[in-house]
Amino acid sequence: MHALLTGQWNADEAHRWRTALQQACPGWQWHEDLTDAAAAQAIEVAVVANPPPGRLLGLPRLRLIQSLWAGVDRLLADASLPAGVPIARMVDPAMTQAMVQTALWAALSLHRGYFAYQDRQRAGQWQVHRQRRADEVQVLVLGAGVLGSAVAKALSQQGYVVCSWRLQGAAAPDLPVLLGQSQIVINLLPLTPATRGLLNAAFFAQLPRAASIVNLARGAHVVDEDLLAALASGQLRHAVLDVFHTEPLPPEHPFWRHRQVTMLPHAAALTDERSAAQVVAAQLARLQRAEPVQHLVLRDRGY
Amino acid sequence: MHALLTGQWNADEAHRWRTALQQACPGWQWHEDLTDAAAAQAIEVAVVANPPPGRLLGLPRLRLIQSLWAGVDRLLADASLPAGVPIARMVDPAMTQAMVQTALWAALSLHRGYFAYQDRQRAGQWQVHRQRRADEVQVLVLGAGVLGSAVAKALSQQGYVVCSWRLQGAAAPDLPVLLGQSQIVINLLPLTPATRGLLNAAFFAQLPRAASIVNLARGAHVVDEDLLAALASGQLRHAVLDVFHTEPLPPEHPFWRHRQVTMLPHAAALTDERSAAQVVAAQLARLQRAEPVQHLVLRDRGY
Repeated sequence: MHALLTGQWNADEAHRWRTALQQACPGWQWHEDLTDAAAAQAIEVAVVANPPPGRLLGLPRLRLIQSLWAGVDRLLADASLPAGVPIARMVDPAMTQAMVQTALWAALSLHRGYFAYQDRQRAGQWQVHRQRRADEVQVLVLGAGVLGSAVAKALSQQGYVVCSWRLQGAAAPDLPVLLGQSQIVINLLPLTPATRGLLNAAFFAQLPRAASIVNLARGAHVVDEDLLAALASGQLRHAVLDVFHTEPLPPEHPFWRHRQVTMLPHAAALTDERSAAQVVAAQLARLQRAEPVQHLVLRDRGY
Repeated sequence: MHALLTGQWNADEAHRWRTALQQACPGWQWHEDLTDAAAAQAIEVAVVANPPPGRLLGLPRLRLIQSLWAGVDRLLADASLPAGVPIARMVDPAMTQAMVQTALWAALSLHRGYFAYQDRQRAGQWQVHRQRRADEVQVLVLGAGVLGSAVAKALSQQGYVVCSWRLQGAAAPDLPVLLGQSQIVINLLPLTPATRGLLNAAFFAQLPRAASIVNLARGAHVVDEDLLAALASGQLRHAVLDVFHTEPLPPEHPFWRHRQVTMLPHAAALTDERSAAQVVAAQLARLQRAEPVQHLVLRDRGY
């Protein structure tokens, strides 16, 4: 059985993925370039991480595209993606745990004012601010998939008042009601036409004054100019941003030197090649047993 | 029934404590100055937060000294403290939760390198570092009282390999063995003659290279010069410090501007006057029912 492994990695990352997948999937032969036409004819599965557009053309026996990343918006943006081939997103327990860690760190930092204390340290100021209990802080988690649910659960366990909102589902309360009560918003939505630019001036205006946002999803969820204006006016106190419209964030972008912005370099949660390779192996085993693969993407929904 | 309330507060803090205690303890009359000799004769309980030395003299009916703080080293250092009067420390659930939050934030920040990412943001560097799972990180919690136990439990729930060490108790494994395996050490020990200066050059040398320490207990647990030397040599990567030999930390102290030191102004966990007043009320009720009060300090042990 033949599989294609294609992604945009440095040599070290490529080596780690190759090694992990070979170990986890005995019986499969892994190809990284398809100069051999016979190999292209044999490929049944493509395991991909931001493949270059057109990379998955000319694979007549392809029957599964398995993403190594949780977000598939860039993958789906490739108009040449073969129609009719199922696409599965990565649901990696280690990646989920990493996302929970980052969300918890961000919520604790915002709730307890640790960012503010770090500013005061740099300014040489010894000044204690009042301490609120976790149950006095409402956190709104946008997105209720695997990541959003895990984050909401962890925050609840720490005592926060947590509410969740998702795009679909009749049970979801109105977003404006939730925004009006939430001091912290954590975005874990998929990027789709319906969610692009959701975090804009109108969104920020519905939050209580001096609320904070944490964007762990996609840069294009946020209208940067609106965010900067809301930070400047005091409507927002702070933003923790892992993702950006352009990555790496261009050096001239104001986020870099903004005191109310804490940045991560799209590192909130990396897929762990060790556990992800096990997930891929389980998917390939389902394929061989003609069982349904898991975590399928609905193309027309966009995630 | 008459109680003395004495502490070193600003006017706002004094007002909040007075109000909270009056509401929580109906039937008790609260005194803050004892110019009235008759009142001094009547005081049965002193509720204290760093009282000035000598403040508790001349109270013939005093039968409980209830601290509002968890740490009682400064209280016990008052040689004029009336002998034979039981002393109780504060065990406030809201304060315990706040300490767990700070410990969790510090451990997450050190494990995931969020402090390093904040440095890189200021330097304009977009650079991802490798991500370890929580179960690849061993955290040593020094102290296994109410606070140490709660912190250890919360870290375990987040997947860390947690070990605990306490001064007393035959079950405690040797400190050198634990130090040799721990990437992060969180200090929650009481300050006693046996623990003063415990975090010194010899202690740091037993940790694996590039370990980190978190001091949430007392400044005098740490030998500052040894800590600075260990940070400079790379033996320690980072220190999170909430407490200091002198507080506020003097402006000329190198910790203020040290890139490997993250400071809090003794704000890791504040006693919450609302929940603490309930704890005091429960103690006073036990006293009235002639039941044993809780969380008694052993003076010769020092905590």
